Amino acid sequence: MSARAGIVVTGTEVLTGRVADRNGPWIADRLLELGVELAHTTICGDRAADIEAALRFMANEGVDLIVTSGGLGPTADDMTVAIVTQFCGRELVLDTELENKIAAILKKLMSRVGVGAGDFDAVRAANRKQAMVPAGAVVLDPVGTAPGVIVPGAPTVLVLPGPPRELQPMWRTAVELPAFQQAVAGRTVYRQDTIRMFGLPESGLAETLREAEQDVPGFAALEITTCLRRGEIEMVTRYEPDAADTYRRLSDYLRDRHWQQIFSEDGSQIDDQVAQLLTGRRIATAESCTGGLLSARLTERPGSSAYLAGGLVAYANEAKADLLGVDPALIDEHGAVSEPVAEAMADGALRRFGADTAVAITGVAGPGGGTDDKPVGTVCFTIALTDGESSTRTLLLPGNRSDIRERSTTVAMHMLRQALG
Amino acid sequence: MSARAGIVVTGTEVLTGRVADRNGPWIADRLLELGVELAHTTICGDRAADIEAALRFMANEGVDLIVTSGGLGPTADDMTVAIVTQFCGRELVLDTELENKIAAILKKLMSRVGVGAGDFDAVRAANRKQAMVPAGAVVLDPVGTAPGVIVPGAPTVLVLPGPPRELQPMWRTAVELPAFQQAVAGRTVYRQDTIRMFGLPESGLAETLREAEQDVPGFAALEITTCLRRGEIEMVTRYEPDAADTYRRLSDYLRDRHWQQIFSEDGSQIDDQVAQLLTGRRIATAESCTGGLLSARLTERPGSSAYLAGGLVAYANEAKADLLGVDPALIDEHGAVSEPVAEAMADGALRRFGADTAVAITGVAGPGGGTDDKPVGTVCFTIALTDGESSTRTLLLPGNRSDIRERSTTVAMHMLRQALG
Repeated sequence: MSARAGIVVTGTEVLTGRVADRNGPWIADRLLELGVELAHTTICGDRAADIEAALRFMANEGVDLIVTSGGLGPTADDMTVAIVTQFCGRELVLDTELENKIAAILKKLMSRVGVGAGDFDAVRAANRKQAMVPAGAVVLDPVGTAPGVIVPGAPTVLVLPGPPRELQPMWRTAVELPAFQQAVAGRTVYRQDTIRMFGLPESGLAETLREAEQDVPGFAALEITTCLRRGEIEMVTRYEPDAADTYRRLSDYLRDRHWQQIFSEDGSQIDDQVAQLLTGRRIATAESCTGGLLSARLTERPGSSAYLAGGLVAYANEAKADLLGVDPALIDEHGAVSEPVAEAMADGALRRFGADTAVAITGVAGPGGGTDDKPVGTVCFTIALTDGESSTRTLLLPGNRSDIRERSTTVAMHMLRQALG
Repeated sequence: MSARAGIVVTGTEVLTGRVADRNGPWIADRLLELGVELAHTTICGDRAADIEAALRFMANEGVDLIVTSGGLGPTADDMTVAIVTQFCGRELVLDTELENKIAAILKKLMSRVGVGAGDFDAVRAANRKQAMVPAGAVVLDPVGTAPGVIVPGAPTVLVLPGPPRELQPMWRTAVELPAFQQAVAGRTVYRQDTIRMFGLPESGLAETLREAEQDVPGFAALEITTCLRRGEIEMVTRYEPDAADTYRRLSDYLRDRHWQQIFSEDGSQIDDQVAQLLTGRRIATAESCTGGLLSARLTERPGSSAYLAGGLVAYANEAKADLLGVDPALIDEHGAVSEPVAEAMADGALRRFGADTAVAITGVAGPGGGTDDKPVGTVCFTIALTDGESSTRTLLLPGNRSDIRERSTTVAMHMLRQALG
């Protein structure tokens, strides 16, 4: 038994490459987790004949489930529901309960932006279209203003909105419903485990895995994928439940060789771990080349005000001197990108914010500004603690400006973990 | 006359979302420039039956040209050329001249990494596979080690390698060849224009477009797509050159109604416009709920050190008082999320950084911290100028914590544009 699925991404802006498709890869990942095999992803524009052709292609390929994304908005170029309805041989009917729900959502939205009642009626009429659903379909309540639908059949079609912030919660609702579960009843139940590493090159892990293939009995039962992301390696292993012992042996094997680089085996991200370690502490940041990315990352999660005192983006040298108290002579002598300046920035952040933990980052993000001594990608990091030892490192990070800035925040997170762990 | 094309992306790592597809969007862009209409992009794994199904789907859809990417390597899971050959009803033949070319490339590569002659023979045998091409095909010389091919026919198939650094130069060679030009002989040269708006709900634009359909003669000749991104609406219109007058009438029509919301008609993004307006100025930021996202956004582009003095992330109230000089009594009286505090933060940023332009953001990003008076999504913004009037606004932004933070930076960028424009 197995279950196969296809993903139909719609949207001229995605087909033409103006907007990157975030939904196809995300749904692909979820299907993998569920043990549903993905056959094809197709992308087409907002054209009835093309959307219909993509649905027909998937059906001809014998998939059990088609997931569509996009084309649920109020404008005329949003037509997915109507086409899916026709494709599934159903009638399009007005769901008045749904219409009222959408109206209530819109009323709330419009009152916020201060639109009058006359305008509201026009908008409501435009959005009646969104309350038209295939007869007999399972309606998924809107996360934004657009509802989704599941049309049971062979194949079953799950219709989701385009914006990821609407699609993702709606997907989670949909997978729990009987109409979805029936469509993928043939799926294989897999276990999936994730090991995350930092500071190991991908080729180093590849070599270990080649050797493990010889040394770990039953290795072939493990489906391993590795992926380099934000400077971390993520190794995901999928296996049927009776291969659990083999997986345990493989993870022992990896831990034996790479215990220094493995930082997570329970699914946690470095951000979760740092947030946990910062409980009861006060942290401040002093950033140059990252321009605030680290403080933004530290404040991504709710409740971060409990430990983040604040941060300073000291882009100009005067800001480093005036606001962090970095001695201008230090900058003259060693340059703004140097370990002594990183240390002075971290000390300044501790003092100015009355913090007990500080991180400083100063580097050359490029594309200009590199020298023979300090090429583009040179970044100095300091972690300072009032109740522990400071640590300072200089790294040469690969990639373009955006990669270097992003990667720098990851390095800082791992240094924080080490300092506080 | 017109020419239609399809893109077949192959690769299990792309299908499963572990690697983002960079080729589909890039080729889509090139086809658009050429005036070749893209019907579909499909993504499938390294499986013969799935690749064949994708090719057949495109042929059934009547495309004139299929472009494939990936699957040209020496390993067994690279099979695109063999499948395309069979699909086109040709024989696979060894191209000895090509074999010698690949051998020469490999010899050079191997000598660099110091591989001996014995190993070289093994590698060369493995790569003989890459010199097998469809009889009568046009061979595209390797950029890496993999050659591409053009197989003329109905449809013509252009086979390109997966790595973008190989695919892109090979594409440029391919489009100049008669075999390619003949396949797309029916192409239409289109014009494409983009209008960007801020502060208009998508349904508002939809309504205007519905009315324009009645009021603007020839409207049907315009192919319009709209897309909501980071709180902005992007409207892209594609049309044949003889519909230029119709497009001009439509853009006049839009400008007439939405002149306050239209900020770009020349393809520029708000970030470009703000960077331009900041030339010769010194800007400083004072952020609370956005935690550094605005300063990070302002420093995304190279050269931003010319205008960004720095920024302060004043998350804690003490930081607002100590580092920005916000009177604690003001916070007690009005709350940290209030217009007087936003104004005081902006003034503090001007003074502390010696800047002439400052932006302050303070708000409730949620999910906690909302009150009846100031629900989650309430954000206060101030733009302060030493040589102009300050402006302050309070908005109620929709979405989750991440949306509210992200959207706040967009609002700040648009307020900056208005203040400096």
